Amino acid sequence: MVIHTIRGIDQQNLDALQDALKAVSYPREDYHILVTPSGLKTVPDQWKKFVSEAFVCDSDIQLASTQYRAKKRLIDLGDGLAFGKAGLTLMMAGPCSVESEEQIEQTAQLLLKLGIRILRAGSFKPRTSPYNFQGLGLEGLKLLARMREKYGFRIITEVRDASQVEEVIEYADIIQIGSKSMFDHGILQKCSKTSKPVMLKRGFGATVQEFVQMSEFMLSGGNENIILCERGIRTFETKSRFTLDLCGVAYLKKYTNLPIVLDPSHAMGHAYGVPDLAKACLAMGVDGLLIEVHPNPEVALSDASQQLDHAAFTSLYRELSAMSNALNIKLI
Amino acid sequence: MVIHTIRGIDQQNLDALQDALKAVSYPREDYHILVTPSGLKTVPDQWKKFVSEAFVCDSDIQLASTQYRAKKRLIDLGDGLAFGKAGLTLMMAGPCSVESEEQIEQTAQLLLKLGIRILRAGSFKPRTSPYNFQGLGLEGLKLLARMREKYGFRIITEVRDASQVEEVIEYADIIQIGSKSMFDHGILQKCSKTSKPVMLKRGFGATVQEFVQMSEFMLSGGNENIILCERGIRTFETKSRFTLDLCGVAYLKKYTNLPIVLDPSHAMGHAYGVPDLAKACLAMGVDGLLIEVHPNPEVALSDASQQLDHAAFTSLYRELSAMSNALNIKLI
Amino acid sequence: MVIHTIRGIDQQNLDALQDALKAVSYPREDYHILVTPSGLKTVPDQWKKFVSEAFVCDSDIQLASTQYRAKKRLIDLGDGLAFGKAGLTLMMAGPCSVESEEQIEQTAQLLLKLGIRILRAGSFKPRTSPYNFQGLGLEGLKLLARMREKYGFRIITEVRDASQVEEVIEYADIIQIGSKSMFDHGILQKCSKTSKPVMLKRGFGATVQEFVQMSEFMLSGGNENIILCERGIRTFETKSRFTLDLCGVAYLKKYTNLPIVLDPSHAMGHAYGVPDLAKACLAMGVDGLLIEVHPNPEVALSDASQQLDHAAFTSLYRELSAMSNALNIKLI
Amino acid sequence: MVIHTIRGIDQQNLDALQDALKAVSYPREDYHILVTPSGLKTVPDQWKKFVSEAFVCDSDIQLASTQYRAKKRLIDLGDGLAFGKAGLTLMMAGPCSVESEEQIEQTAQLLLKLGIRILRAGSFKPRTSPYNFQGLGLEGLKLLARMREKYGFRIITEVRDASQVEEVIEYADIIQIGSKSMFDHGILQKCSKTSKPVMLKRGFGATVQEFVQMSEFMLSGGNENIILCERGIRTFETKSRFTLDLCGVAYLKKYTNLPIVLDPSHAMGHAYGVPDLAKACLAMGVDGLLIEVHPNPEVALSDASQQLDHAAFTSLYRELSAMSNALNIKLI
Repeated sequence: MVIHTIRGIDQQNLDALQDALKAVSYPREDYHILVTPSGLKTVPDQWKKFVSEAFVCDSDIQLASTQYRAKKRLIDLGDGLAFGKAGLTLMMAGPCSVESEEQIEQTAQLLLKLGIRILRAGSFKPRTSPYNFQGLGLEGLKLLARMREKYGFRIITEVRDASQVEEVIEYADIIQIGSKSMFDHGILQKCSKTSKPVMLKRGFGATVQEFVQMSEFMLSGGNENIILCERGIRTFETKSRFTLDLCGVAYLKKYTNLPIVLDPSHAMGHAYGVPDLAKACLAMGVDGLLIEVHPNPEVALSDASQQLDHAAFTSLYRELSAMSNALNIKLI
Repeated sequence: MVIHTIRGIDQQNLDALQDALKAVSYPREDYHILVTPSGLKTVPDQWKKFVSEAFVCDSDIQLASTQYRAKKRLIDLGDGLAFGKAGLTLMMAGPCSVESEEQIEQTAQLLLKLGIRILRAGSFKPRTSPYNFQGLGLEGLKLLARMREKYGFRIITEVRDASQVEEVIEYADIIQIGSKSMFDHGILQKCSKTSKPVMLKRGFGATVQEFVQMSEFMLSGGNENIILCERGIRTFETKSRFTLDLCGVAYLKKYTNLPIVLDPSHAMGHAYGVPDLAKACLAMGVDGLLIEVHPNPEVALSDASQQLDHAAFTSLYRELSAMSNALNIKLI
Repeated sequence: MVIHTIRGIDQQNLDALQDALKAVSYPREDYHILVTPSGLKTVPDQWKKFVSEAFVCDSDIQLASTQYRAKKRLIDLGDGLAFGKAGLTLMMAGPCSVESEEQIEQTAQLLLKLGIRILRAGSFKPRTSPYNFQGLGLEGLKLLARMREKYGFRIITEVRDASQVEEVIEYADIIQIGSKSMFDHGILQKCSKTSKPVMLKRGFGATVQEFVQMSEFMLSGGNENIILCERGIRTFETKSRFTLDLCGVAYLKKYTNLPIVLDPSHAMGHAYGVPDLAKACLAMGVDGLLIEVHPNPEVALSDASQQLDHAAFTSLYRELSAMSNALNIKLI
Repeated sequence: MVIHTIRGIDQQNLDALQDALKAVSYPREDYHILVTPSGLKTVPDQWKKFVSEAFVCDSDIQLASTQYRAKKRLIDLGDGLAFGKAGLTLMMAGPCSVESEEQIEQTAQLLLKLGIRILRAGSFKPRTSPYNFQGLGLEGLKLLARMREKYGFRIITEVRDASQVEEVIEYADIIQIGSKSMFDHGILQKCSKTSKPVMLKRGFGATVQEFVQMSEFMLSGGNENIILCERGIRTFETKSRFTLDLCGVAYLKKYTNLPIVLDPSHAMGHAYGVPDLAKACLAMGVDGLLIEVHPNPEVALSDASQQLDHAAFTSLYRELSAMSNALNIKLI
């Protein structure tokens, strides 16, 4: 159950209420939001005097549920950029990894030319082999910050584990929690205490239920700016790297109040399929797209096979723009 | 290897060639098409005199491969209806099962009103419980045939197993092989000997490789009118009934020459998600859509939860039509 | 609900009862067994006079459920061979396919030497490519029958689809329905009308629930001699061909009354892993093991990689025998 | 390629070699072990003078591969307890979570009575909901340490994320990295710098290849005491919580040199299946078993359904002991 306390509740009563209901809480202006285990379905009589509103939820998807709040949450990045605004889809593009200043500058020029405002690139890479490129680390974050200063981009970049989360929070405009880190309590805890937007990618082995529940760790810690990103789940099919789960997205759209982003690049794992999938993603009606583009994919230090080159990306972006008009979507 | 013999090859040489290369063959006007195991990569010298053209394929996807034939196969149903024609997407709609004349007549009226030309409905149902409705059988096929006679629809309906394949071939315009029957050699063999179009649905536990290889059983038996249908695969996610595999579709579009149909209804299993998924399917650029619609889904005898009612379907069809214009697709 | 009618019920009342309860039925000596959809939880008052016993089941697993019949069903093959007898595990061994008289004779000699009494081999092969060996068909069945006549083996062999089910029923002692045919209603219907034992293999994409429900098609048609075989399900792991689902077997042992056989050969797909897995299977406490052995696996016409050679199989069988003593299991 | 340098190589040459081959390295007495990306298959001529031995590996499974080191690694815990010793299987038992001193004392008494020497229990719990019990944290570690002091147990307990890894390293005898943290670079990095044994649990969505590669992060950082634990993967089957992948274990046994532990409790998720599965695990021939037991599972604060009570565990342990004799395994 999600509970809004009465305004001006004092600390002693709040503590008593929270203990009695085994609740997690976070403050809002002059009241508090408490979340109890979802098994609790009514406020016991003796506590009703402290409760202003209460919302019963079917499962431990609570703050993210439309049973609590039917309207989609709006996450405003300024300058007309927002996740969760009806009829607006934000494009986030860039290479898998920052590799050098020259490379990221080339990407920046491409985005500028196309009018794209959010630059993505990873710098702490959660690789599956210790014998490959592990990312530029802090140096990469600084290169991304330079692009923001020069050109005004919003920067989205990934935190790999709890040991560099402060650095990423400092440098990024949107903090990305990667698929392999979806369950990382160290990251979630620290991201719950910032107000910067966080994009949580679905673990490739995680159910939709678990995915949203992990976002509840941040929501119930007080960060209301959470975005969900579906990027492909692991199935028996091996022709593609993962399987993009648009059925799961249909569920998320209906039952949660969080903005949703789709990442066709990681799902497919091969550049040839990205354009068709990106169109399908746009047609699903989501809040953002995340697409990998690299000046020279063949020599990319990570994810070489799935990144589009500049020409292919430009052509795709123009097709998406044309489509968005027909769909009454504004794509930026 | 796919081999085209020289024209006018005599039976004795044909037999010898086929034996020597362990090939399967079928006749075309005045030559034969042979398919050897894909391990064979060159025609032995002594046989070259009987060979007009030879195509090497990477795997046992051969006749369906773009390595054999780059251009998509065209399957013409007459009256401007065709699978495999660039810029044309065919809508196939109707209830999960034929339940009564009244029900199928209501569906027919809906399709007539919207200008949809292909009516789908099952009559031999491959149920997973013996204790539920098993379909009307032959009687249902006759009701479908009556709708064709009255209104000129093309009829697509399912063969459940090898014991009623002749009846379905007789009554249907397009024979549907269901997901659970994808590996059924009895059905495949008989469907390889008709020239009626066959829509093969992907087994929900089958890889894309197996899916296309099963179509090869029909292609190599001489039926060139094969359509592939992706309808969701089984994954760990249980919020939806299956997971629609659009990444797999991207593969099929690139590497095979067969028309492709998408079925968002069975993938999702819940009516609420079908409209968004149907738009995504159309945006993928495929040859057909298969959508379940029922006059009164709540009392449907099978698949009650996933069928759209007439109002929801009408609204969806209008949105798809608007979208198709922007995509330069003709949707009928 | 499973219902036993009163003894001597007449046809008219039986028909009325069956219609009223939408039940499937089959006869026993002087009464009938009816199975209604599992949603029905009580016998309506007006029908109680025809009902001797009624068993409520949670789902459409009914005749196979321990809620109907707690004791495991016994399937007697004579000569001390039986599935479903506590403390008895039957070994079924032989090649993937009958390839020639010489090959099957060699296998027979091996089994004779080890005292194994059930010979397995396929003759109608459900291959995934039309360009490979498809089995010897009827000729193979005859070779197997010859081995039975010469040496007294029980023969277990596979029916591929509904078009050759009569032949297999005629020649086999145990009819095997393969993984790809688990949903084949044509086969299930015909196997429900014989009293020969049928071993139903789990579809590699099928849930345990669906698996048992498909056995209900045969049980409710009157064939009570059904054996379940777990042979690996399809998962994301590709180092092995399939993933042997022993957790699913634990469920089957607890909640169903059907004998259970395990097939480590198909699950693993590589001979090296079969011995360890076979030991694990025996330790699980099941009614039978199905293991592939071939005189010369390297030249086998199907499943070459997973068949044990005679030496490896002999060594494994001796280890299993030693283990079975410690487990108080009789292995034959 | 795994490379052993010559003895006494100086730092300058070592650095040059490492840079040239893009290798990761760690020191041994008077030489170094370098690991290059597995794509490198020969040592370039100019560097051969610094190389004593070189081992080519097929993939980035290198230090863990039998291609590098055929013999299983031995991890000695003292007092006759060791992972990786032929014919020895170590039992690790205890509750899912430390809940109180009384609870853990009861467990300790049970283990003492049965002669089990390794106590397991979690204190930092990686829960999937913020609205449930999250573990006792540091207080729990201290309770476990007290049990070690009083009774001489080895303690295995879980690190949840990089923010409490030092504490767990300090208190545990064996550090457990949980399934959800398998990809956590923060944890892996710190565990690579201790010499305490680490048991890495397979991510439930991770392939065997990824699983072993993550162990390479620790091996190549210098910690050679790594144990792999299979605990069930996520599949489409929902009757059990996960699917225990014994086929994957067969692969690990053949192709890696790391000790292997099996956890039937988490795989099954229901106490009723644990005994049969535990016997299957023992019969597979592995280095350890991890089984959950709780004084009163019904009131357990986590994993209530899968923990055995003391009576069931005692009975199981006696059956396993009897079986181990027949298998020539020593079980402690």
